[in-house]
Amino acid sequence: AVKRIGIIGTGIMGTDHARLLTEAVSGAVVAGVFDLDTERAAGAAASSGGARVFADPYELISDGGIDAVLIASSDATHEAFVLACIEAGKPVLCEKPLAPTVEGCARILEAETAHGSRLVTVGFMRRYDPGYTDLKTLLKDGAVGAPLMLHNVHRNPAAVPGLPDAAVITNSAVHELDVTRWLFDEEIVEVTVHRPRATAQGGGTQDPQFLILRTASGVLSDVEIFVNARYGYEVRCELVAEAGTVTLDAPPPTSVRRGGLHARELPGDWRPRFAEAYRLELQDWIDGTGGGATAWDGFAATFVAQACVAALESGERHSVDLPPVPALYR
Amino acid sequence: AVKRIGIIGTGIMGTDHARLLTEAVSGAVVAGVFDLDTERAAGAAASSGGARVFADPYELISDGGIDAVLIASSDATHEAFVLACIEAGKPVLCEKPLAPTVEGCARILEAETAHGSRLVTVGFMRRYDPGYTDLKTLLKDGAVGAPLMLHNVHRNPAAVPGLPDAAVITNSAVHELDVTRWLFDEEIVEVTVHRPRATAQGGGTQDPQFLILRTASGVLSDVEIFVNARYGYEVRCELVAEAGTVTLDAPPPTSVRRGGLHARELPGDWRPRFAEAYRLELQDWIDGTGGGATAWDGFAATFVAQACVAALESGERHSVDLPPVPALYR
Amino acid sequence: AVKRIGIIGTGIMGTDHARLLTEAVSGAVVAGVFDLDTERAAGAAASSGGARVFADPYELISDGGIDAVLIASSDATHEAFVLACIEAGKPVLCEKPLAPTVEGCARILEAETAHGSRLVTVGFMRRYDPGYTDLKTLLKDGAVGAPLMLHNVHRNPAAVPGLPDAAVITNSAVHELDVTRWLFDEEIVEVTVHRPRATAQGGGTQDPQFLILRTASGVLSDVEIFVNARYGYEVRCELVAEAGTVTLDAPPPTSVRRGGLHARELPGDWRPRFAEAYRLELQDWIDGTGGGATAWDGFAATFVAQACVAALESGERHSVDLPPVPALYR
Amino acid sequence: AVKRIGIIGTGIMGTDHARLLTEAVSGAVVAGVFDLDTERAAGAAASSGGARVFADPYELISDGGIDAVLIASSDATHEAFVLACIEAGKPVLCEKPLAPTVEGCARILEAETAHGSRLVTVGFMRRYDPGYTDLKTLLKDGAVGAPLMLHNVHRNPAAVPGLPDAAVITNSAVHELDVTRWLFDEEIVEVTVHRPRATAQGGGTQDPQFLILRTASGVLSDVEIFVNARYGYEVRCELVAEAGTVTLDAPPPTSVRRGGLHARELPGDWRPRFAEAYRLELQDWIDGTGGGATAWDGFAATFVAQACVAALESGERHSVDLPPVPALYR
Ligand SMILES: [Mg+2]
Ligand SMILES: [Mg+2]
Ligand SMILES: [Mg+2]
Ligand SMILES: [Mg+2]
Repeated sequence: AVKRIGIIGTGIMGTDHARLLTEAVSGAVVAGVFDLDTERAAGAAASSGGARVFADPYELISDGGIDAVLIASSDATHEAFVLACIEAGKPVLCEKPLAPTVEGCARILEAETAHGSRLVTVGFMRRYDPGYTDLKTLLKDGAVGAPLMLHNVHRNPAAVPGLPDAAVITNSAVHELDVTRWLFDEEIVEVTVHRPRATAQGGGTQDPQFLILRTASGVLSDVEIFVNARYGYEVRCELVAEAGTVTLDAPPPTSVRRGGLHARELPGDWRPRFAEAYRLELQDWIDGTGGGATAWDGFAATFVAQACVAALESGERHSVDLPPVPALYR
Repeated sequence: AVKRIGIIGTGIMGTDHARLLTEAVSGAVVAGVFDLDTERAAGAAASSGGARVFADPYELISDGGIDAVLIASSDATHEAFVLACIEAGKPVLCEKPLAPTVEGCARILEAETAHGSRLVTVGFMRRYDPGYTDLKTLLKDGAVGAPLMLHNVHRNPAAVPGLPDAAVITNSAVHELDVTRWLFDEEIVEVTVHRPRATAQGGGTQDPQFLILRTASGVLSDVEIFVNARYGYEVRCELVAEAGTVTLDAPPPTSVRRGGLHARELPGDWRPRFAEAYRLELQDWIDGTGGGATAWDGFAATFVAQACVAALESGERHSVDLPPVPALYR
Repeated sequence: AVKRIGIIGTGIMGTDHARLLTEAVSGAVVAGVFDLDTERAAGAAASSGGARVFADPYELISDGGIDAVLIASSDATHEAFVLACIEAGKPVLCEKPLAPTVEGCARILEAETAHGSRLVTVGFMRRYDPGYTDLKTLLKDGAVGAPLMLHNVHRNPAAVPGLPDAAVITNSAVHELDVTRWLFDEEIVEVTVHRPRATAQGGGTQDPQFLILRTASGVLSDVEIFVNARYGYEVRCELVAEAGTVTLDAPPPTSVRRGGLHARELPGDWRPRFAEAYRLELQDWIDGTGGGATAWDGFAATFVAQACVAALESGERHSVDLPPVPALYR
Repeated sequence: AVKRIGIIGTGIMGTDHARLLTEAVSGAVVAGVFDLDTERAAGAAASSGGARVFADPYELISDGGIDAVLIASSDATHEAFVLACIEAGKPVLCEKPLAPTVEGCARILEAETAHGSRLVTVGFMRRYDPGYTDLKTLLKDGAVGAPLMLHNVHRNPAAVPGLPDAAVITNSAVHELDVTRWLFDEEIVEVTVHRPRATAQGGGTQDPQFLILRTASGVLSDVEIFVNARYGYEVRCELVAEAGTVTLDAPPPTSVRRGGLHARELPGDWRPRFAEAYRLELQDWIDGTGGGATAWDGFAATFVAQACVAALESGERHSVDLPPVPALYR
């Protein structure tokens, strides 16, 4: 049976998801959309083969013609919509962050626990990227032995000038917080944030930042997060282990020799880089095979991000004291 | 409306296609399958969500519950099944070759012309490979200027010992014949085949072979085809043009440092290498947007392959005198 | 006029230097050698075209037939031999470290200052590596804008089991301390050392270690130093700047496809990796054009290394309070 | 004892050789120079530490203060100067070609045979390139099994407009003729030359050209020679063997990320690409260890080049019927 999906928020991400669900995913149709900008919603509905445009997101969530909900609206709205989905007993895929505050995430954990089964998936799409899954497979298969370090680089060409320092962590580095937890299957227990010389291109933002994350078993995961790197979008990492290392750099299939250079193109932003990850994430969500990030993962990402923000401000090491994992997520 | 697909032939390729249509393509279901091996057919049907198993392939083709047909049976059967699909007025995706002989291909051209519109797509999946489409886009955009040469390498780890020399061309190099025609949008007009020293691993086959193809505008496309290359599966090419070159090598996303080497893994066969191409080919076929190889392309590939076989035997240059393109394919 | 070189210490490094001076450097002969192991000295002398074997290193230094001295003996002996060279007014190339202690280095600075001109060169050969000089040229030419970070990786396949933690810094990471100072033409002012999970292959050594160095202008240089990395020898870095990055990875000229892998070989130790650097270092020293590391550079390297050792032990950030640069070295 | 070298011809190559002999080679001095342009000769002499400027090249050759001669004058003069060196009994390193005609090369073989020992080395410097020697070592060590094919690419950014078609072979592709003979230690017995569509940038020259060389054991070596490739200078090859392949591409040590590209720089011409080869060639020649190309190699290169020119003109396969190797060169 084809799943009828409702999408809340039809900005860049929501529109991309609508397109993928319509054109590239098996077993799904976009049945409803909502956006504060009704024209934008109408456009997304039209290109999704005639989805219904809802005037109220809560109506969409509770409508009998909607089997599951995808939330791609602004961060501040995530909590309320996710809670409404749980209330309605419907599966929900929520773009990261699950909620901007630890408290908001905690309320979702409570609601889902009260509901008694998992309904929430958080859109940490890198868990579906073929490069990251390849890396994790190699690690799990023991190809390079026990892990010791992970070096991460995460660069965007440009951010809003004067972006708050904390947002560099909560918006961008949060992906590496999740990657670190997911790859090693353990929690981050301590964080330090170093301040390199800041680029003059950032309008005053502390950019780049250099995070040092320690996992429960002692693995050190360092993250260069640089949101005004100018030259292009790039996400890379190297796993360092006892018998070797694995590098994820995801080169494109072609290279060009021209004008004195032998070059491969870099993507301009995250969408071409993670296009396949988004498709696989959506297909997996539709299949209901449950491979994505849970509400607990969303909570932990926000929790660790807050610790990193505190560490950035203090310049000190901060321990990360996550509460015990609720039974539903073990 | 979801398209109901019938699959004839559920060997390796047919089963892969059934899986993709079921799990990774939007807008399709596998509604029927046929295979001489009824157990194999039943297995494919079961994993396709309960497709009907047909006892007769022609029944499948004419059945009212089948909208379109995918042919992945043995090469010798392609012609008859394709003709039956045309007779039934149903779209058909036929694995290469369209037919093993020029005469067989010609009969299909005639039947489709008599039918009056295009129904046949030939499964030259490389036309959908992101690397090849990237290459063609760069060429069409003028990124490196006018084309002069194309160097192709096509290696398989192992073939049947003593494979006939001609089969190296008709089974394997035929992909490069199609790539050359597709990339440059023109016909191959002359071919030469050189005989390098043969590997001792081929059981007597002339392997590798080295084809030199000349297109109508004079571009030279050389092809090293080596079906007992042992070390892995690899398809690469370099386009040489007036202002630069484009190389397609499609590296995997990760590399490993271990045991004194920094290495990227090579695929073991063509399926992982072209997995994305197959998915996109099927999606495009289901969408009916008509980007695939036509019956004329299938005819031309077989025609040029026959000229290459003759050139291999004679050691001389052979001109390729294709008949005029029928109106339906212009 | 050909320079007559005396070599003190004919172990691995001294013998390599003797060979290079004899066979690959213009304008030099090895005229004298000394080693505690007289047989080893005799061997080095013989393969250097008949150099004189000295029974006493101080005799070698003061001998009228020796124009300049190369010191490749054990670390603890460096100070005394360098001081004797200064005393004799002879140019001296001393393998790193200049002296194992800050105090020993300081005594050399004083002696050279008293002498009134520079005689001492410290063997930080990376300053001559074509990759590092390429990197510095790109930085100085503004190819990627103002520098912000430098990520360094320095791996050896194996170290003595149970190597003291401090030796990982003073023997190995000291190269990155010098590289950081040399590349950015400024001093390191603050250091932190993180302790990743230690490899089980190190016999108890804290290995790898992760150093964070801050320069006077705020550039952050991080160093993964890993002396039991098993898989091979590797030195890499990436300079991150305002408009782009430069990566130094020095791939070998060939790659091999075999057994399912496309691989480049990694060197087994530092000598093949830096063979060209050693040759250029020696040629420059013989030419007397003065491009190498000075006694001040040797002092600073030891000084910063000591700060890193303290930071490793405390787990805290340590500021590095170098004394003012003596006039001779400005 | 230091060898006193006389250089005939102080154009680009002669000046480069003079500099290397003076600054980077052990055991040599430039003692004399000759050039038709006396000012240019005086400049080369001055920067070689005061070499004598000769007014007559034959005087230089016969002068008692010259131990060996390096010939870097125009191609047409090579034969006479080499013959004079043989007459004088002096070792001579002659830039390729040994002589532009087969007959000229034959006269040198006769003269050297009459002399009774080898004096002549031909400057096929690629035999000293670390990439090519690495490739040969891998082949000889059996790393990839028995050889079957060699794919060569040889590109220059620009040639004289309207360069004669034959010169593309005799000036440029001649390097691959020598490489093929040297790598496989056997003669080329058959050649074919294909004409790809010519670039509009060559002023009428048949450029690129595509050579197919067959060795005595049946190995096929194909050569794309393209002297107006515009984008840069590049020499690459891939050896295809029974168990794997070896690629020589000689990447530079650094890469740059900038402006949407991850790129490595390509050299602008052959001198930076083969700088190390030239140094090692000269050092080996000075050492007299005899690893370079002999007069027979020079003869064979010119002989095969002539066959290729004939094959280019006829469009047919040409067999290459070299005379028996004279005893002196076996
Ligand atoms: Mg996301
Ligand atoms: Mg196919
Ligand atoms: Mg050193
Ligand atoms: Mg040359």
